[in-house]
Amino acid sequence: MVSFDFSNDRPVIEDKVPRVNLVIDGGTIITMVDDEPVISQGRIEVSGGLITKIGKSGEHNFRSKDDVEIIDARNAIVMPGLVNCHTHAAMSLFRGLADDLPLKTWLFEKIFPAEAALLDPKSVHLASLLACVEMIASGTTCFMDGYFFEEATFDAAKKAGLRAILAQGVIDMPAPGVPDQNENLNVARNFVERRQTDSNIIKPAIFCHSPVTCYAKTLQKASEICKELKVPFFIHLSETKWEVEQLRNKTGEKPVIYLDSLGILDENLIAVHGVYLDNEEINLIAEKGAKIVHVPESNMKLASGIAPLTGMILAGIRPGLGTDGCASNNNLDMFSEMDMAAKTAKIATSDPTAFNAMSAAKMATSWGSAVAGLDKHIGTLQEGKCADIVIIDTFQPHLRPCYDPLSNLVYSANGSDVRDVIVEGKVLLRERRFTHLDPLDIMKEIKTLAAKVEKHLPHVRIAGN
Amino acid sequence: MVSFDFSNDRPVIEDKVPRVNLVIDGGTIITMVDDEPVISQGRIEVSGGLITKIGKSGEHNFRSKDDVEIIDARNAIVMPGLVNCHTHAAMSLFRGLADDLPLKTWLFEKIFPAEAALLDPKSVHLASLLACVEMIASGTTCFMDGYFFEEATFDAAKKAGLRAILAQGVIDMPAPGVPDQNENLNVARNFVERRQTDSNIIKPAIFCHSPVTCYAKTLQKASEICKELKVPFFIHLSETKWEVEQLRNKTGEKPVIYLDSLGILDENLIAVHGVYLDNEEINLIAEKGAKIVHVPESNMKLASGIAPLTGMILAGIRPGLGTDGCASNNNLDMFSEMDMAAKTAKIATSDPTAFNAMSAAKMATSWGSAVAGLDKHIGTLQEGKCADIVIIDTFQPHLRPCYDPLSNLVYSANGSDVRDVIVEGKVLLRERRFTHLDPLDIMKEIKTLAAKVEKHLPHVRIAGN
Repeated sequence: MVSFDFSNDRPVIEDKVPRVNLVIDGGTIITMVDDEPVISQGRIEVSGGLITKIGKSGEHNFRSKDDVEIIDARNAIVMPGLVNCHTHAAMSLFRGLADDLPLKTWLFEKIFPAEAALLDPKSVHLASLLACVEMIASGTTCFMDGYFFEEATFDAAKKAGLRAILAQGVIDMPAPGVPDQNENLNVARNFVERRQTDSNIIKPAIFCHSPVTCYAKTLQKASEICKELKVPFFIHLSETKWEVEQLRNKTGEKPVIYLDSLGILDENLIAVHGVYLDNEEINLIAEKGAKIVHVPESNMKLASGIAPLTGMILAGIRPGLGTDGCASNNNLDMFSEMDMAAKTAKIATSDPTAFNAMSAAKMATSWGSAVAGLDKHIGTLQEGKCADIVIIDTFQPHLRPCYDPLSNLVYSANGSDVRDVIVEGKVLLRERRFTHLDPLDIMKEIKTLAAKVEKHLPHVRIAGN
Repeated sequence: MVSFDFSNDRPVIEDKVPRVNLVIDGGTIITMVDDEPVISQGRIEVSGGLITKIGKSGEHNFRSKDDVEIIDARNAIVMPGLVNCHTHAAMSLFRGLADDLPLKTWLFEKIFPAEAALLDPKSVHLASLLACVEMIASGTTCFMDGYFFEEATFDAAKKAGLRAILAQGVIDMPAPGVPDQNENLNVARNFVERRQTDSNIIKPAIFCHSPVTCYAKTLQKASEICKELKVPFFIHLSETKWEVEQLRNKTGEKPVIYLDSLGILDENLIAVHGVYLDNEEINLIAEKGAKIVHVPESNMKLASGIAPLTGMILAGIRPGLGTDGCASNNNLDMFSEMDMAAKTAKIATSDPTAFNAMSAAKMATSWGSAVAGLDKHIGTLQEGKCADIVIIDTFQPHLRPCYDPLSNLVYSANGSDVRDVIVEGKVLLRERRFTHLDPLDIMKEIKTLAAKVEKHLPHVRIAGN
């Protein structure tokens, strides 16, 4: 991409023309802005990583098409990049390793041992890179992650060019990279301090595993550190009946009431799952301004339940949407997640009008960006916002006809329909080819690493290529 | 594809070598045969539309590789073509036309009026062709359809090269192509008689819309005609609470008991949905040998409910899997349908072990082929069976690593991962390109037709490309 020449021999009027380096022209733009959600035959101009102009095709204010990269978006939908509000990126290493098991067996007999045996900065970096290429290839431009060795995930996201909020995991037991559990908060604090100014588009954070696996004082200190360092605080909350019962036995309280009694239920808290929230808890979350992330597919696959999405929305909560890690989903496709958010809400309420395509798309874009605290910068396509943009090829049999592009996106599309992906004005995927990553190399290295997983867990059926 | 030369100057021993015209080599073969479900680095030979040999790569018995088309399946999964046991193919014309509405509003205020205004043999043919290219592109090789103007769908399937059982719709009210409802059974009978010997791989059938929308005598006569002409009899059954209540008010019976009282609950009956079946009904279906088709995504999207899949299986029923039409799903992707069959079974029972990836894959292949009455010919990859084969490209980020190919197929893949599709030995899709259909032409024609739909239903939001 060549920048404009602003030398003095140009007429004065042209000096006022903004520097444009990317134009997306001719598509159906889904802005996700309430006043004008859809612009047919639209045009977006991008300069310096920002959207500088958005409108109808034909209206442009750059000087010469030779100076800019032009993406032809005719027969395509242009939408804000998707925000995946909950992942454990490196768990892509364990995709399909252990399915169709009870959650406790899955976690304690399969995933935890595999993590203990295999995780180190190198494996987390590689598996996070695999997750990043999967996310880019399916239209995610920003992800919120919580795991161990999170510095390795930070480096992977940086290499991939993705926007992210990456949280170091804290659990009150020996964990990968944190053999002494008494050091867990120090490790997390150090991570945040080291990485706080490392990237313009990636921010560090802290992720406490759950109120059951972290002591009260750990939760409180973690929350304090997050507020002191001005980073978000993630937690798994009310994922399973078992966990809720455990906590009630231990504390006598329902999960949200418990968090509130610790003084940590506030605007800085991002709670994930929320399957067993009752109305009292939902209203308290809304009142305190805490954030919720909805993870429908993982909650289905582990048979945890269907979170009360419509109740949350009625209370004024605007949840983000997340895929969870690949060990419990088993992909990072936000399109199928949108579809499932809508369909599970319908089935849980026996009401097909309970949740519609537009709301599902908002969860994955504008609402998600607000959960991330990034709604001033991303989540809608508007002038002045960051150019985090996804382009979907709609000239495909399963996306035809197109009466309502939002319907087709949520109910008919899948991640593989994503053609181009742009983050902060940088094109990461173009015509489904990566511009600077080599997914083949990453997949080859993953194959070698997966062979080690199989060696450590010999009960795994070996039948893959 | 060049046939072998069996001229006399070849040694005698070579004359015994079978004529092979297609070889699929090097893939992970998911046979769906219970004894040996997976063959790593396998090889399949195809001759005259049949699988003539299946085994490990390197074991072959054809004479010269120059004489055959060889498909390199390294880094790919090879599996039986998927059997979509319930569609209304031509309803692809109404994809995304009316979402997020109550079933009755959706059906009576949107879909029925659109059908009345737009359907004719030409539009049904074109929309069925669109469905066929979508099905081929997502790995379906056989589909079971019920709709109006079914002859047009028959011609479309024939042109597309798909295997199918296609049923003319019968309803006791004026319907597209059947303005006089008293003629509905004659139209259906004529269709079956005309098309019974028209194709080796497509069979006609009759589809009664439901026990609520067809009179008892219509159901009985339709069942008789089907048995006389030796074709299957389809029916929607127990899809919604409303429908079950209507029938109980009318007949005093639960749907299955009612069908049995009419004498039509037998091995020739293929009942679709079954959301509100109780144990008495499930056991009666099992006892009588009637077939069930599970349609989880459509049942979710219309908020009808989750069918008691695990109860059916416990009773010995082996349901097929279907997508339903594109107006209520909104795609024909059997991969997401497998995923949802497993996940909804888990969530409905609060048990993640309730239904596994293998069972989901069986529904879409071997069980589905038995529902279609075609299990001697398709549904598993075995010597002597028809070469209906799908090849999935697994060297993609969201399908890596691969500890268990069945898990990756059901929980991670989507229809767009299908690379090659073969029906009766004929390659319909190769490296995601259609060998003899032109999907662009079909999509362009659909655009014109969709504009007419919008004109007839001006409340439709017009925002597509």
